[in-house]
Amino acid sequence: MSEATPARRPSTALFTDHYELTMLQAALHSGAAHRRSVFEVFARRLPTGRRYGVVAGTGRLLEGIADFRFGQEQLAFLESTRVVNRQTLDFLADYRFTGSVRGYAEGEMYFPNSPILTVEGTFAEACLLETYLLSVLNYDSAIASAASRMTLAAGDRPCLEMGARRIQEDAAVAASRAAVIAGFTGTSNLEAGRRWGLTTIGTAAHSFTLLHDSEEEAFAAQLESMGHDTTLLVDTYDVEAAVRTAVRLVGAELGAVRLDSGDLAVQAREVRDLLDSLGNRDTRITVTSDLDEFAIAGLAAAPVDSYGVGTQLVIGSGVPTASMVYKLVARQGDDGRWVNVAKASKDKVSIGGDKWGLRRLDEDGVATAEVVRIGGRPENDGDDRPLTCDFIVDGELQDGWTGPEGVTRAAAHHAAARAELPRAVQSMSRGEPVIPTVVETD
Amino acid sequence: MSEATPARRPSTALFTDHYELTMLQAALHSGAAHRRSVFEVFARRLPTGRRYGVVAGTGRLLEGIADFRFGQEQLAFLESTRVVNRQTLDFLADYRFTGSVRGYAEGEMYFPNSPILTVEGTFAEACLLETYLLSVLNYDSAIASAASRMTLAAGDRPCLEMGARRIQEDAAVAASRAAVIAGFTGTSNLEAGRRWGLTTIGTAAHSFTLLHDSEEEAFAAQLESMGHDTTLLVDTYDVEAAVRTAVRLVGAELGAVRLDSGDLAVQAREVRDLLDSLGNRDTRITVTSDLDEFAIAGLAAAPVDSYGVGTQLVIGSGVPTASMVYKLVARQGDDGRWVNVAKASKDKVSIGGDKWGLRRLDEDGVATAEVVRIGGRPENDGDDRPLTCDFIVDGELQDGWTGPEGVTRAAAHHAAARAELPRAVQSMSRGEPVIPTVVETD
Repeated sequence: MSEATPARRPSTALFTDHYELTMLQAALHSGAAHRRSVFEVFARRLPTGRRYGVVAGTGRLLEGIADFRFGQEQLAFLESTRVVNRQTLDFLADYRFTGSVRGYAEGEMYFPNSPILTVEGTFAEACLLETYLLSVLNYDSAIASAASRMTLAAGDRPCLEMGARRIQEDAAVAASRAAVIAGFTGTSNLEAGRRWGLTTIGTAAHSFTLLHDSEEEAFAAQLESMGHDTTLLVDTYDVEAAVRTAVRLVGAELGAVRLDSGDLAVQAREVRDLLDSLGNRDTRITVTSDLDEFAIAGLAAAPVDSYGVGTQLVIGSGVPTASMVYKLVARQGDDGRWVNVAKASKDKVSIGGDKWGLRRLDEDGVATAEVVRIGGRPENDGDDRPLTCDFIVDGELQDGWTGPEGVTRAAAHHAAARAELPRAVQSMSRGEPVIPTVVETD
Repeated sequence: MSEATPARRPSTALFTDHYELTMLQAALHSGAAHRRSVFEVFARRLPTGRRYGVVAGTGRLLEGIADFRFGQEQLAFLESTRVVNRQTLDFLADYRFTGSVRGYAEGEMYFPNSPILTVEGTFAEACLLETYLLSVLNYDSAIASAASRMTLAAGDRPCLEMGARRIQEDAAVAASRAAVIAGFTGTSNLEAGRRWGLTTIGTAAHSFTLLHDSEEEAFAAQLESMGHDTTLLVDTYDVEAAVRTAVRLVGAELGAVRLDSGDLAVQAREVRDLLDSLGNRDTRITVTSDLDEFAIAGLAAAPVDSYGVGTQLVIGSGVPTASMVYKLVARQGDDGRWVNVAKASKDKVSIGGDKWGLRRLDEDGVATAEVVRIGGRPENDGDDRPLTCDFIVDGELQDGWTGPEGVTRAAAHHAAARAELPRAVQSMSRGEPVIPTVVETD
């Protein structure tokens, strides 16, 4: 990991449900804790009406697995509260994940039953990671899935992430990262910028204008301090008067104006005409009031240069969790033989067995199916693209997935993989997954 | 703060939007940064159809303000990325909040325009806190607001928080805390348990049963390791067979069974009858499958002993953010005179001026109105309850609001304050705020 991402957390180990540790205790007691096991992360469905999902969080969770260690602070808590017994505490004190993790590259699309992440190790070591892995994948993927639709709707116009204030502070940092993976060009979130080298953006709020004795004084102060290419917020009082004031102060050099209220399509048109009439043809217009993918699509014909997205980004445009689950799909018996397993609970059926994914592509490179094969890699017809990558092999983190490098790589991967999807994906209307999932067994 | 809550974060200062710092730079340039200012957190509305909101996160944000310092790591990032100039970096290096914070006690109800939190200080020091304060309050309050409706619907039956895997890992910790403030009796989240002394709970998942060669082996291992009072998960294969196996193993001592799928009302009835017929009248039934306040209310007549709530808790039952904003409402001029300020943006009008809140109660102690007074404390008719408390006075944190003590206090406060609300609050149907907000001016 680069210097830009120092470990902020001494341990991720207690981002874990109590029952993971009590299960471990009982499995250590029965001896079954040492059986080799395969757990799989998948989603039974996409959010209602969505055509595809986007995997995000992989780099974060790989960073976090390295910090998943039980130190003095964690062990003292578990001991004093008697969550687990001495045998289990001793196991935890030595815990370090030595298994393997493979799955879909960060930024990749996923569909119902895609084998998004597969964790192989002893039951003990793989079971412990459940809660943490799901927390990361479920939130980050939900945000990337929504963000990808926003950047699709925005076309060539930049989308900027500004939602920090609307969600828990650390979740906001993760959301910024997921947004950039899904095509956002920058974020207002400074911690996300620091941790993963993301571009940060921002100029001023209404309070800055209100602080000064007049809008003109406020604008003048901002222009002097930040330069003429800055973005002035023009809707604190009267938009037309504000635009005229701004142009009077700095002329054609004014970088941009921001609109944060009212009917954005109408206002953008009026402001564009006004700017043009004043000779400010190069002054840009950015809009920022409660946008989502539908509002962005609705502004396609308006003279808008960029979109700032807040609330709807960090809450996944109404779907802040991706419904991914982590299920035991195979384990060894005492005789060393592998057994595929799946629960039979009503309405929550799983598919047993170790799985690999492949995107079936036609001769034009357009995706036609999500192929999931149980027990081995699906056959590649030549044009197809294998989806399952190695992240950790026998405890060793593979290069390139984490840190700023991982984010850059994931963003590029996302853009390329999304370009393979059929045109129907451009539609903002509700529908079925844009390609079907085909499960193959040996 | 108690030993149970060591600072996990070296700094909260970069949980901040880029524009807070550029505004600061421009205000330092104009000189206005040093004007005394009053910012207020309020919500223009409750989530659609909700009858009341619950303030949460206050203790967390007071803990976080103490850690809001710009250290070497933060300053190096801001310098290398040129977010702000040298003058501003020097200001940040010495930054420590020396102003005052007052507002609604954690666990208190809020309504449209309640003055939830008021921050007074120089523009520079108060402006910087905006993003962080809103992140904490918006998420924690959204969760507590949903959780309170769940515990209201559950009546005397305990609600248990189990949503960690459905939301970003640190957000999950905050959600556990907010749930307990709103009446939940425990959480599966170990980190939340460690940080604030919350009761943690949990036993086993389906994977534990699947790991073993038979359900009976799994149950036997759990019972031996955790004791007969444990909770067995009985829906991995066939519920009836599982209950019979469990009772065969341990008889009437079996603590509880958990149902996690299917029609919970029907299954709970069948399992209750089966347990009773086998002589297990004291064995409890807990249910855990995708519950929200409506599902809990719908199970009121079913023989259920406790509710485990996951997804819908951590996403605020569809509303994961509380729409709170942080607005400059008053500031001094260069002559030292205070000026009330408010922006006039279309559809986002604010009310200028420093405010205090009071809950008007009738002679039976039932709330009849939310009184918000501009410029001073509202008059108390004798039965009324003042709502505005001091949290930080001239930079000094007041006792009792943070750490485990703060959570215990907030939970007690919530229960008492909720009991004052009119009976209409019991309704799960959509409606207007259960009491009106009355804004008084001098």
